Amino acid sequence: MDARVKPSPSPLQALDLSAWMDERLGAVERALSSWVTSDAPAGLDHGAPAELVQAMRYAVLDGGKRLRPLLVMAASEALHGHSVAALRAACAVELIHAYSLVHDDMPCMDNDVLRRGKPTVHVAFGEATALLAGDALQALAFELLTPDNDAQLPAAMQARLCRLLARAAGSSGMAGGQAIDLASVGCALSEKQLRDMHELKTGALLKGSVMMGAASGQTTLAQWQALEDYGAAIGLAFQVVDDILDVTADSETLGKTAGKDAAAEKPTYVSVLGLERSRAYARELLGQALHALERAALPHDGALRALADMVVNRSN
Amino acid sequence: MDARVKPSPSPLQALDLSAWMDERLGAVERALSSWVTSDAPAGLDHGAPAELVQAMRYAVLDGGKRLRPLLVMAASEALHGHSVAALRAACAVELIHAYSLVHDDMPCMDNDVLRRGKPTVHVAFGEATALLAGDALQALAFELLTPDNDAQLPAAMQARLCRLLARAAGSSGMAGGQAIDLASVGCALSEKQLRDMHELKTGALLKGSVMMGAASGQTTLAQWQALEDYGAAIGLAFQVVDDILDVTADSETLGKTAGKDAAAEKPTYVSVLGLERSRAYARELLGQALHALERAALPHDGALRALADMVVNRSN
Repeated sequence: MDARVKPSPSPLQALDLSAWMDERLGAVERALSSWVTSDAPAGLDHGAPAELVQAMRYAVLDGGKRLRPLLVMAASEALHGHSVAALRAACAVELIHAYSLVHDDMPCMDNDVLRRGKPTVHVAFGEATALLAGDALQALAFELLTPDNDAQLPAAMQARLCRLLARAAGSSGMAGGQAIDLASVGCALSEKQLRDMHELKTGALLKGSVMMGAASGQTTLAQWQALEDYGAAIGLAFQVVDDILDVTADSETLGKTAGKDAAAEKPTYVSVLGLERSRAYARELLGQALHALERAALPHDGALRALADMVVNRSN
Repeated sequence: MDARVKPSPSPLQALDLSAWMDERLGAVERALSSWVTSDAPAGLDHGAPAELVQAMRYAVLDGGKRLRPLLVMAASEALHGHSVAALRAACAVELIHAYSLVHDDMPCMDNDVLRRGKPTVHVAFGEATALLAGDALQALAFELLTPDNDAQLPAAMQARLCRLLARAAGSSGMAGGQAIDLASVGCALSEKQLRDMHELKTGALLKGSVMMGAASGQTTLAQWQALEDYGAAIGLAFQVVDDILDVTADSETLGKTAGKDAAAEKPTYVSVLGLERSRAYARELLGQALHALERAALPHDGALRALADMVVNRSN
């Protein structure tokens, strides 16, 4: 293991991650439930149609690890950031993640009928409604970031959060990565090509989560760059570990079909590097993430440290 | 005809609409072509994958009336608004419109194979790429509204434009209207239900275009509300005239299949009101739009007047 994996503990490294997470997850769940509704927003005559909103709620609520919202909030708290900005950004990034899963599951993409043990959105609501629900979730993400009341969330922060989210989600981020993923099925990729794909497909939004949290507070340029390095390292580590679990865990532990990537002839870290080198790479990335946090020298980075560890050492 | 349809001409009502439009359309086309690219945005390591960007460009460039960008620019110019904001907003709203057409044409929605005489995006690039191209176009719209350089576009204006666009595009706007449209096929709708559907499906983004133009400048509250009334009236008029043309124009003039709504058993203004009452309603809405502009009393409203007239008196 890389010597940097276990730096000297910071005062808050001993934080109770489970209690910390429970509190944030509760706040995110309540906020999502209150924001994904058919209530007419102020200034509009109409609310959203009920069935569309049902599909949106089905896609978003009661499911998922919520890793992205946790990263937003951990980064924000490390900097004593703006708490309203952090909660809105946490929910916005989760809406983008949720819409991407809805569209990804559709027959023209991965054609999945189950997610988290439930029928996927297009199975439950039909393909057209799934398509529209995904589209509407993306728009809602930007709506959450731009509340009418500037006093609630300063306009400059609203603009900065929208900028980070749009770039993380779009053609040079998540959507771009999915396009490369589509094109790569059945292809032999080099390690660099695989990394480039994942830096966009999953990495951009994970790193974007960290940076949106950072944007809710004040950083020096050096701290900002160190947090970018942290976000990039855990973004990639997340995917490497996903690929490892796809071959080592059973479907029950995983909560989804194990061995699916291999069956779909998708190039993975395990297929390119082998299992042992993939494990070593995940540990190396954890080391890089923790090293970046040391450089950032933030007062309260315990949750960011713990989340990096969780990403690499998770079992599902 | 409503007596308000022909108010006394303002000094600029005699503007040469054709020359005015050509200049703006050229600027929008050049800007869209420069922004829908695979260049890596500042701060990101990667550009977008080439095939995805090709599909996005195919969906956006060389086509369409560009009514929404023209409305943004006309409203902005009426107020001497911020020209960078107006151009970015004009392109952003067109990207949202373009993505909605890509998704609308897909087999699970309208299943159209031709648009503007060309194969639709999913026919030319495959369904998965069409889905992702639409998703990426929506994200790019918000990216255009949030340039890195606040001096180029003040942050408060960035935030306000994002807010207006997100609401116009989402579940209480365009996407919501499409969901109602889906649910209404084969149903008998009342005139009110039809109006509610269209106020969301096409009206929200047309009105949103006017309001984004207005947000690029300064207005009084009364002017803002008058422009909302103008935008709502032409948004609805656009749809009424669409429904009239669907039964009165031939496919060649229309540039799309005439009689399609009737064939698809979609409720339309003509099916609910009849042809003559639909025509009278379009004229009444034009009168309302022009009356709203009189109330707004903007110094240079010639283009807004001319566009309202064009929306109602167009032949395709």
